[in-house]
Amino acid sequence: MASEKRQKAIDLSHHLSDVSRARETSPLKGLSKFLGKPGLIVLAGGMPSEAYFPFSGISGDALVADSFALKPMEQESSLSWFWKLFSGANKEKTHTITIPKFVEHPAEEVNLAVALQYGTATGLPQLQKFMKDFVDKVYQPAYDDCTIMVHTGNTDGWSRCMQTLMNPGEKFLTEEWTYPSALASSKPYGIYPVPVALDKDGMSSAALRNVLAGWDATTQGKRPHVMYTVPVGQNPVGSTMGAARKKEIYEICVEYDVVIVEDDPYFFLQEGEYVPKASRPESVDTVSEESWLAGLAPSFLKFDYQGRVIRLDTFSKYIAPGSRLGWHTCNPMFAERLERQAETSAQAPCGFGQSLVTKLLYHWKLEGYTRWLHGIATQYTARRDWFIDCLAEELDLKATTSTDVSFWKDCVVYDAYAKPSGGWMMSEKGSVGTKLLSFVPPSAGMFIWLKIHFDNLPAYKRQGEGEESPEIQLWTKIAEAGVLISPGWFFAADVENPPTDELEGHFRISFSNADFATLKKAAQIIARETNKFFKA
Amino acid sequence: MASEKRQKAIDLSHHLSDVSRARETSPLKGLSKFLGKPGLIVLAGGMPSEAYFPFSGISGDALVADSFALKPMEQESSLSWFWKLFSGANKEKTHTITIPKFVEHPAEEVNLAVALQYGTATGLPQLQKFMKDFVDKVYQPAYDDCTIMVHTGNTDGWSRCMQTLMNPGEKFLTEEWTYPSALASSKPYGIYPVPVALDKDGMSSAALRNVLAGWDATTQGKRPHVMYTVPVGQNPVGSTMGAARKKEIYEICVEYDVVIVEDDPYFFLQEGEYVPKASRPESVDTVSEESWLAGLAPSFLKFDYQGRVIRLDTFSKYIAPGSRLGWHTCNPMFAERLERQAETSAQAPCGFGQSLVTKLLYHWKLEGYTRWLHGIATQYTARRDWFIDCLAEELDLKATTSTDVSFWKDCVVYDAYAKPSGGWMMSEKGSVGTKLLSFVPPSAGMFIWLKIHFDNLPAYKRQGEGEESPEIQLWTKIAEAGVLISPGWFFAADVENPPTDELEGHFRISFSNADFATLKKAAQIIARETNKFFKA
Repeated sequence: MASEKRQKAIDLSHHLSDVSRARETSPLKGLSKFLGKPGLIVLAGGMPSEAYFPFSGISGDALVADSFALKPMEQESSLSWFWKLFSGANKEKTHTITIPKFVEHPAEEVNLAVALQYGTATGLPQLQKFMKDFVDKVYQPAYDDCTIMVHTGNTDGWSRCMQTLMNPGEKFLTEEWTYPSALASSKPYGIYPVPVALDKDGMSSAALRNVLAGWDATTQGKRPHVMYTVPVGQNPVGSTMGAARKKEIYEICVEYDVVIVEDDPYFFLQEGEYVPKASRPESVDTVSEESWLAGLAPSFLKFDYQGRVIRLDTFSKYIAPGSRLGWHTCNPMFAERLERQAETSAQAPCGFGQSLVTKLLYHWKLEGYTRWLHGIATQYTARRDWFIDCLAEELDLKATTSTDVSFWKDCVVYDAYAKPSGGWMMSEKGSVGTKLLSFVPPSAGMFIWLKIHFDNLPAYKRQGEGEESPEIQLWTKIAEAGVLISPGWFFAADVENPPTDELEGHFRISFSNADFATLKKAAQIIARETNKFFKA
Repeated sequence: MASEKRQKAIDLSHHLSDVSRARETSPLKGLSKFLGKPGLIVLAGGMPSEAYFPFSGISGDALVADSFALKPMEQESSLSWFWKLFSGANKEKTHTITIPKFVEHPAEEVNLAVALQYGTATGLPQLQKFMKDFVDKVYQPAYDDCTIMVHTGNTDGWSRCMQTLMNPGEKFLTEEWTYPSALASSKPYGIYPVPVALDKDGMSSAALRNVLAGWDATTQGKRPHVMYTVPVGQNPVGSTMGAARKKEIYEICVEYDVVIVEDDPYFFLQEGEYVPKASRPESVDTVSEESWLAGLAPSFLKFDYQGRVIRLDTFSKYIAPGSRLGWHTCNPMFAERLERQAETSAQAPCGFGQSLVTKLLYHWKLEGYTRWLHGIATQYTARRDWFIDCLAEELDLKATTSTDVSFWKDCVVYDAYAKPSGGWMMSEKGSVGTKLLSFVPPSAGMFIWLKIHFDNLPAYKRQGEGEESPEIQLWTKIAEAGVLISPGWFFAADVENPPTDELEGHFRISFSNADFATLKKAAQIIARETNKFFKA
């Protein structure tokens, strides 16, 4: 795939915003034609002397690439760091990587004299090369000149895309439930989302076509020409868009000339189907890294024969959020505009972070990094399973194939009923047997999305205490009981008209961070408080 | 000063842009009231487990705070790093600082579990505290609730201010020659500079008053309510604005309700007056750090009793540009808006960089960091002196007190004439005795700003070869001869109407980065090429 030429006849420059068009073509103006000449003495920029950088070298103790098993053992995973730290049980295997200030071959070896100096907004060349090889291997873009541009994380990545592609007053397509920060970025500029309904595969292609085909420019303004989507581990609902749906969506975007911004932080956290604990096999065969990668839902890049996808990748979920490091993959024309934009904001990402991450990746190599990602995916899968298992202990879970007309149609939905007996629940009478909540186990990502059946509340409670919705009331009770989760209304693309009603609340719960024992305690508290809330 | 209350009656909120006003008041919405509660289980955000951060610790070999002498020896400074590296002559004294992933007291000790996790856009609390103490000690703000907000360098810092304070179509005040990236940030948004003339103390208060008093809103649009200024080591001219001028400018800004954005990267590179080599004393008494700080031109913060200054500080010139780390100091209302803006762009600066810089600063302590800054200032002073000494060897320099009506009025100006004899110049006949260029030695910063007297060119050359100005012609010849400097037109606030004419060109030359031998060679090439260019 990757060797095919992009359809060069497709001119996408009309998608650029006025602000983006107004940027200069190069900040270096006439200087660039001389740069790189051997022996050139450059006294043009305000570069401090490298002799005055106060670090003569930095280093990091990096975990080995296979630190996390591909067959997770819950017991091991549930050890808290605290216990590990003070019991001496920490048997992490590490390798020390070092980045000296000066090296003999600065063009090849990562060094602080370059990484900590001013550089181009495209980032360290070695990092760019690694990411290019990674993108080619893993995402297999459909054209041969796709370009890598570093950014400081996907929130920044989307902000830059938004400002590069849209003018104030324009609207963009997105899932009906979506990442709130993406909206917080655009709203101040008067750029608003147009919600598209979700189904079990993510954004519905039928709904997308309806929105675009039925668009009335006279009453609705300019038809959206940009899509913001989180296709894998959709935030918040946790669905994963497979190849077939992506092709459908892509073709509709070709037809209606839409640029797709693919925000894909959870790509490597594809966790597959949830199998209840009782039915889960005790041991699973591990697969090779190649098979694992081949089994993942593909990126939109794979179908992007016109270069209309800007993909956002981040190291936040795989190295650390504090790396503030990620990258755009897109056509060279968009990449150049994004580079100019970077030059007047954060410029290149931090050189300490870039050099440590780059050196780590070169130490691990492509194979090692893939192994690391596979290990992390396994960990999060175990976390998802564990948290749902915990809920199953507290509530009576029944799996059904939903006939619901909502986005859970044809999904395996778990309905949770107040348990008739057992543990602390014994004393909590009144709600036993009530359907409290339902969820579809996420197939990727960090979150479980619960639907709460407030229509089953006793009538006097449905009307709400004071002016708060039942969702906020229960959310507050759970928080007061010691567990802070996210209320569903945060995630509505259109907060004024959320894709739900007062008697159908939602919560998004993250299973990504707390240790296993804490997740168990949280599941208990959530179940207990929900049960109490539903009591007459 | 610092204990006085800001004039709370002064409401500055009308300075906020429409975009800034449209930002939400908090991304956490109702969550924040629960955060920080002891024992709270937080499952609200998409935070990865710290166990999966691949670094169990990082460390850095940091130079000791007194690495650079306060009485520089040119010989030592001119050793290239290359020679030092391979001769074994590198006697740098270092101390190893380490940042473990986990520590016993995470609220006090810098650690990767916090630094590499998502955090607030205000940065590491320990860094914020250090910077606050530093600001209080060094800049002595005139009011007691000034607030520190990290950013990713002053270019980003200004971009954020520009978007927080100005709407498209508005104009801001700035020096007639200024930092090109500041303009590149604003122009795409249709926000343009209004040039204010410079004199020997920087921006002229008389010229500023003229611009504001004579402003005609009917023909010129809204009167500028924001100023962008580089008051110390003014970029490109190298002047330094002292206390008296700052008070004048500040009072005019009070009168006309202007917010001052003080971009001050060169504050600690105040180099004092240039003394020609022959008159320079062999040894100077070193002063205490307290006396050194007390002798520096103050910040606008010192006079800011109304909270109308946003100061931009950066570690780029004192730690390293690649740290991509700096901070805003301003009133709490502006700080809050800047924080919200950060949340939808780069968020917090990189945690690798923040933790290494923070740990270094705590290792050095305030006293050590001040000593480090003093050492760096001494180094750049030696560099400035060296480069001008080199020019004096190649050209016949004559100091005069200019009677020029331009911004060099009352300055000690060095006029440079083609030398009648000596060295390679022997064979270069024709231009001997011609006044080629003039400059005022910079009192701070990294640059020397040359004025080239193209009015002394032979008549046939003045008309220019082809369509290029003499400035570009000579700049090209110098670049072709192996030295890349910056042509003056880069720095004109109003490129269409630069504060100069065709026969008065300028170059900005950086003496900050090249080693001493290379700077000498560059001075030779610049002098030789200029001399050749002026030959009949």
